[in-house]
Amino acid sequence: MLVARDAADAVLGQLRATAEALTVGARTHRDVVAAARTLTQHAVPTTVGARLAGWVRGVDRAAVRLEAARDALPAQLGGAAGTLAASVDEFGVGFAAALPAAYAAELGLAAPDAPWHTARWPITELGDALVQALDALGVIAADVATLSRPEIGELAEGSGGGSSAMPQKANPAESVLIRSAALRAPQLGATLHLAAATAVDERPDGAWHAEWPTLRELLRLALGASAHAAHLAAELRLDPAAVRRNLELSGGRILAERLARVLVPRIGAERFAELLTGDAPLADRIRELPEAADLDVEGLLDPAGYTGLAPGFVDELGGDS
Amino acid sequence: MLVARDAADAVLGQLRATAEALTVGARTHRDVVAAARTLTQHAVPTTVGARLAGWVRGVDRAAVRLEAARDALPAQLGGAAGTLAASVDEFGVGFAAALPAAYAAELGLAAPDAPWHTARWPITELGDALVQALDALGVIAADVATLSRPEIGELAEGSGGGSSAMPQKANPAESVLIRSAALRAPQLGATLHLAAATAVDERPDGAWHAEWPTLRELLRLALGASAHAAHLAAELRLDPAAVRRNLELSGGRILAERLARVLVPRIGAERFAELLTGDAPLADRIRELPEAADLDVEGLLDPAGYTGLAPGFVDELGGDS
Amino acid sequence: MLVARDAADAVLGQLRATAEALTVGARTHRDVVAAARTLTQHAVPTTVGARLAGWVRGVDRAAVRLEAARDALPAQLGGAAGTLAASVDEFGVGFAAALPAAYAAELGLAAPDAPWHTARWPITELGDALVQALDALGVIAADVATLSRPEIGELAEGSGGGSSAMPQKANPAESVLIRSAALRAPQLGATLHLAAATAVDERPDGAWHAEWPTLRELLRLALGASAHAAHLAAELRLDPAAVRRNLELSGGRILAERLARVLVPRIGAERFAELLTGDAPLADRIRELPEAADLDVEGLLDPAGYTGLAPGFVDELGGDS
Amino acid sequence: MLVARDAADAVLGQLRATAEALTVGARTHRDVVAAARTLTQHAVPTTVGARLAGWVRGVDRAAVRLEAARDALPAQLGGAAGTLAASVDEFGVGFAAALPAAYAAELGLAAPDAPWHTARWPITELGDALVQALDALGVIAADVATLSRPEIGELAEGSGGGSSAMPQKANPAESVLIRSAALRAPQLGATLHLAAATAVDERPDGAWHAEWPTLRELLRLALGASAHAAHLAAELRLDPAAVRRNLELSGGRILAERLARVLVPRIGAERFAELLTGDAPLADRIRELPEAADLDVEGLLDPAGYTGLAPGFVDELGGDS
Repeated sequence: MLVARDAADAVLGQLRATAEALTVGARTHRDVVAAARTLTQHAVPTTVGARLAGWVRGVDRAAVRLEAARDALPAQLGGAAGTLAASVDEFGVGFAAALPAAYAAELGLAAPDAPWHTARWPITELGDALVQALDALGVIAADVATLSRPEIGELAEGSGGGSSAMPQKANPAESVLIRSAALRAPQLGATLHLAAATAVDERPDGAWHAEWPTLRELLRLALGASAHAAHLAAELRLDPAAVRRNLELSGGRILAERLARVLVPRIGAERFAELLTGDAPLADRIRELPEAADLDVEGLLDPAGYTGLAPGFVDELGGDS
Repeated sequence: MLVARDAADAVLGQLRATAEALTVGARTHRDVVAAARTLTQHAVPTTVGARLAGWVRGVDRAAVRLEAARDALPAQLGGAAGTLAASVDEFGVGFAAALPAAYAAELGLAAPDAPWHTARWPITELGDALVQALDALGVIAADVATLSRPEIGELAEGSGGGSSAMPQKANPAESVLIRSAALRAPQLGATLHLAAATAVDERPDGAWHAEWPTLRELLRLALGASAHAAHLAAELRLDPAAVRRNLELSGGRILAERLARVLVPRIGAERFAELLTGDAPLADRIRELPEAADLDVEGLLDPAGYTGLAPGFVDELGGDS
Repeated sequence: MLVARDAADAVLGQLRATAEALTVGARTHRDVVAAARTLTQHAVPTTVGARLAGWVRGVDRAAVRLEAARDALPAQLGGAAGTLAASVDEFGVGFAAALPAAYAAELGLAAPDAPWHTARWPITELGDALVQALDALGVIAADVATLSRPEIGELAEGSGGGSSAMPQKANPAESVLIRSAALRAPQLGATLHLAAATAVDERPDGAWHAEWPTLRELLRLALGASAHAAHLAAELRLDPAAVRRNLELSGGRILAERLARVLVPRIGAERFAELLTGDAPLADRIRELPEAADLDVEGLLDPAGYTGLAPGFVDELGGDS
Repeated sequence: MLVARDAADAVLGQLRATAEALTVGARTHRDVVAAARTLTQHAVPTTVGARLAGWVRGVDRAAVRLEAARDALPAQLGGAAGTLAASVDEFGVGFAAALPAAYAAELGLAAPDAPWHTARWPITELGDALVQALDALGVIAADVATLSRPEIGELAEGSGGGSSAMPQKANPAESVLIRSAALRAPQLGATLHLAAATAVDERPDGAWHAEWPTLRELLRLALGASAHAAHLAAELRLDPAAVRRNLELSGGRILAERLARVLVPRIGAERFAELLTGDAPLADRIRELPEAADLDVEGLLDPAGYTGLAPGFVDELGGDS
């Protein structure tokens, strides 16, 4: 429990550093309009700020959970089978009853409400919180790895990992390591739950023993991934030109949702669908429509005018970093 | 989210009914001394009340977690990619900004702090809480299934499941179904985390879709297992004679921890170890020791005198059931 | 791959030693009639030999799978992205094309049919086989842990693990460790599959990296558990008196399936069900039935006469150990 | 078992259809040079044919495994606890001993070597093979989803999924569904193994029951994903212009591995590293080097000259489709 508490402390510090650095980034790039992607395809405009704010919210929530799990980590002092009989025999009931809380206070752990040999929620709640932290970091890493693909190029890790064989490469090495940890963590968390769910008798015959190496590995993954995330967040670089280039890639079709509301009533769904086909810039095609003569086509097709509440999501981020 | 909330509500009700019935049982059997088992072997005495109180604590804690997860279930109203751009276009920023909270209030869900297309903690926190509930129920079921083995016979489900082929059997059928659910739940929870951890872009390309059937199945498992648990807890029967018989099975050796403290200083560790071998009642062998002539052997070997704090664990249970 | 092959070799040797020792046990106890248990309750008679033969079949099958996976472990020589372009550049196509097989032969590994940077079946097939081995050992350990409960007492590990606090205990320590490994292995296997299933591009961005520590841990678990199993199998002790005592525990009701076929046509299902209630020996109650006057009650109630094909399952075991 | 066999048959058919369609594609695009990507970054050239051949090998291997698992699916006829005692009682030992194989033959299933109530390898081996099939399909889907990103655009599903809100979108809908299945399958496979590994007694108290819905869901996932894969493979479209554009994106730096071997001996590692920086076409920069005056720069920088054994991997594919 002492090791778990200290490790959780360190992870928490790194989660907060990650969130702070990302919050700075979200504010800096609050109004940079970017392509939002769903199911890999361009969907509608969003902002870089909103994307980073989403990452921050995930990390913040995970930190709240991890802090609660850490603070709940109880001392264990129950004797062989959770009765403290040896302590009662030696010191009397009154002293023995006060012992676990005193012991916990001495160690800086929570006082257990009873021995928890087979009530393993302190382990699974810590495990769940660690996995949740790795989920939140995994989302960041998935986005960074994707958006730093050469064809996309919107993001780059500050110091890409080199390759001995291919000297031109700048791998998103920290994202890769975070993703690797995020892929492994859920199954480690599942093992902790299985150990909890099969804890028979007053101390189980194998379930308990499955916990130790699993929790240790999960703590190590969270420590490593959060350290990488804090560094990645501090050094992350945005290429606004690439963001712009990608946003314009569809020749305005990324605004189809907006256009549909304006144009379908005028030209019908069928002609509207036809309008979106091909590669020609939409602006030209719309201007050719007699039914659209009165429209401000340039305005309609300005992605900056269709970011909805995205910019505001940055302003609502907590902290004053 | 509405289905999840209603299902979580139902699970919560069944967890509370389970805890209440078990609390009644814990109070009824507060002072029934029983063999505590660790790694399958008799360890020291405990009480039936303490065992049931441990079950109750696990269920109560899971209920607290599930209630929190249920109350945090947010409405989702973010549009295609979490910007609410269509709503802003149609109703203006002010109205659109107020919309998610109003919508959530209408549905009786929590107001989201932002759209959560790729921040899936509402799903994983619910999943974690459901798995934790199944862990707590799994512990009960594992103990009931074990303690209702014919050779042990301390517990019996009120209405054992019959067997068509073997009409003499009274299977612990509800325990079996709960155990089955508890074995499956952790991996379903892991899938929810994997979906959360790989949620790329503004809406992911597969991870999101892995959530739906998984959460549905997890809700179904929790509904079924908690209903079985509530019934099992209400109908569970204790056989005090079997409890007593098992407690006496070791001929007093279940008190070896206590005896060691008294006897090793008098006869040394080696002779003490030798004393425990064989099957003869320990009382007789101790009375033969000249060094033990002044001891109250009967008192030392009374399991009721070595239950430590076990009886008190029942008194500390909350509720007034 | 070299480490994996050598570890798999060692595991295989221990699986075979386990199976051989258990086969000896199955033959020794071929005809010892015992209670078969289903859903924790006594079902019908079986034999100790059949139980052990079942264990052997599971281990043998796992060994076949592991051997196949080991023999299929390929060398990897594909260059940065699986084209061997550098080798072709340096040595020419002919030489480069022959290189992987030559390299594999040198290492004693299988020749790859092509580089397998993102076709990870050599890893998952090995992982599956290791998990299957731990499944088979887990079954043995679950039975040994259960049947060595003091109230059951049919089996005992040759050298039970001691307890410092409770000197009377003889824990089924090897079973406990095997069970712990068997609880952890499936989730490690799942991580290997997730790494395989998300292997994008010519070398993936995190999935690949999740494999290494996971496979290493799985190999370690299999090595440890199979070593414990081989020792456990060699030292396992049977208590025939306990087996007999448990078999007779139900006062003949363990033969209810057989009796039903004989008695229901004579006395009807209702009276037959009534006959099974209570604790009185069934023989006496049947002899009181006028409709059963012509029956060989003793013969009907002899468990040795109702073991079906169980004894023969031992004879069909392979090997000549 | 009958349902499992039939479902496995259907999956097998779809895997083979997938492999055949991809083999046609691999042959058609055998020599289309493309950027190989490792850790998301351009690494060296490869071919579209080699990429598709890699997919085919994964699918073929999974089909071999699935076929073996299907053919091994045994009938189960063991009676209540695996002894066939009721059959022996009714028909005699000889007839009863012949019964399982006769029954299996009647059903078209494999003859069991013994009842397998607690030797669950027929279930886990089928599960492993289904998961392996989903791994192989997951790799294809991950590549298609990635390579059909608008910024990359090398591949497109023949009939992209439409979006009601965003009419311009052509989602890689089949890839998304396959990916979703591939993310869920490993944890379902793990549950099958956990059920196998905790199968205690002659029929277990929960583990067995965890198998049924899990295997059913895994079969459904494999059926759905393999049907989507077969359709996707048949309709998959390649955009050779996009492949070429991406290949040239790095201005020749994708050949850095090759260049290093030629240039580092001439200009040293430091100057070579410097040469790769910036965005200017490498060809121009190399031609400025006096040390490179004798080199065929155009040839060196031709990606088609550095695909190694990639084209040949297509020729080695089996089948004559």
